[in-house]
Amino acid sequence: MGFFITFEGPEGSGKTTQIRLLAEQLTKAGHQVLLTREPGGTTIGNAIREILLNQAHTDMSPRAEALLFNAARAQLVAEVVRPALAQGQIVLSDRYTDSTLAYQGYGREQDLTDLRALSEFATAHLAPDLTLFLDIDPVEGLRRKRACDDEWNRMEAQTVAFHQRVRQGYLQLASQEPARWRIVNATHDVATIQREIQQQVANLLLLHVG
Amino acid sequence: MGFFITFEGPEGSGKTTQIRLLAEQLTKAGHQVLLTREPGGTTIGNAIREILLNQAHTDMSPRAEALLFNAARAQLVAEVVRPALAQGQIVLSDRYTDSTLAYQGYGREQDLTDLRALSEFATAHLAPDLTLFLDIDPVEGLRRKRACDDEWNRMEAQTVAFHQRVRQGYLQLASQEPARWRIVNATHDVATIQREIQQQVANLLLLHVG
Repeated sequence: MGFFITFEGPEGSGKTTQIRLLAEQLTKAGHQVLLTREPGGTTIGNAIREILLNQAHTDMSPRAEALLFNAARAQLVAEVVRPALAQGQIVLSDRYTDSTLAYQGYGREQDLTDLRALSEFATAHLAPDLTLFLDIDPVEGLRRKRACDDEWNRMEAQTVAFHQRVRQGYLQLASQEPARWRIVNATHDVATIQREIQQQVANLLLLHVG
Repeated sequence: MGFFITFEGPEGSGKTTQIRLLAEQLTKAGHQVLLTREPGGTTIGNAIREILLNQAHTDMSPRAEALLFNAARAQLVAEVVRPALAQGQIVLSDRYTDSTLAYQGYGREQDLTDLRALSEFATAHLAPDLTLFLDIDPVEGLRRKRACDDEWNRMEAQTVAFHQRVRQGYLQLASQEPARWRIVNATHDVATIQREIQQQVANLLLLHVG
């Protein structure tokens, strides 16, 4: 069996950059690495992603949104993640089930028990081996995001209070499962953050192989 | 509060025709009638419907499929069905939660308990007042369907055994909730079927108003 690492955190926390750097390092070290992201990562998932991020869909019901995220996730797990893990690959996913709990649960204040049940159904109970939370103040994250691209999607057009609830949600999720989570300070420079991530991953891979 | 009637049955059972005729009759009688169908019935739902019925998506995971049907349903209930019922309208829906149980549950043999939980979440527990099952042998239904249009979508490209399981599933669901279900023989001619449907609806509307 391979190893499943998920990355969580707000927009602008640098997840994409960090995942790419980690993938390069793992590949150099001889691992087979598969990169993916939520929502999306499959043909069906990308079609779902378009529905979710469409600015015209401001009247989407919170339940429909949670079901769509989980539909994309179910397809990703069945079509991509499980087969890759079965081949012994290291799967790095930009977001996973914890995003639903943080954004729809803590952020939009939907029922966490319902959302957990949806995620369990969608993934058929596939949990990550390691979840890295790139922690940054949401206001700072959004500022960075806006500075480097003009994309401004429906998820980001939320109040600051929403993004603060999301961050507190992430921290609470991390405190509930400390063995799976690592909190990384995402205000540091790119190289420092990457060094910390590589140390965490190296430690766990050693334990995993051992 | 209005009145919520759902129509279930295989392709080729004549649901669309019967719903249209019933709507005309109810409108003549002075009711406000709202027609809808699953999956779809909203802008977001129609986008989801396109993903579900796309022939290229033959590798859709069963869990993703169940989640997508329920996402379209959640949007339909929140955006269309509940507001219409709150205004006292009669809502006629071509398919609803029982389709998921019959097709994904009995047909594809997914876990019924999981599927019920998804539907309960999607609808926030909104059950129909009346469900009319237009019963016809699936082979006869598919023959009729093919005779009158060339549309041949992914859901229909299933084995006969699948469609037989779906029919038996519907009959079992009906036997579990006899107060909600009426089984209508859909091999009769259009006028006979419509007369039976109108009688059932009239009886229940009387009870409902009284």
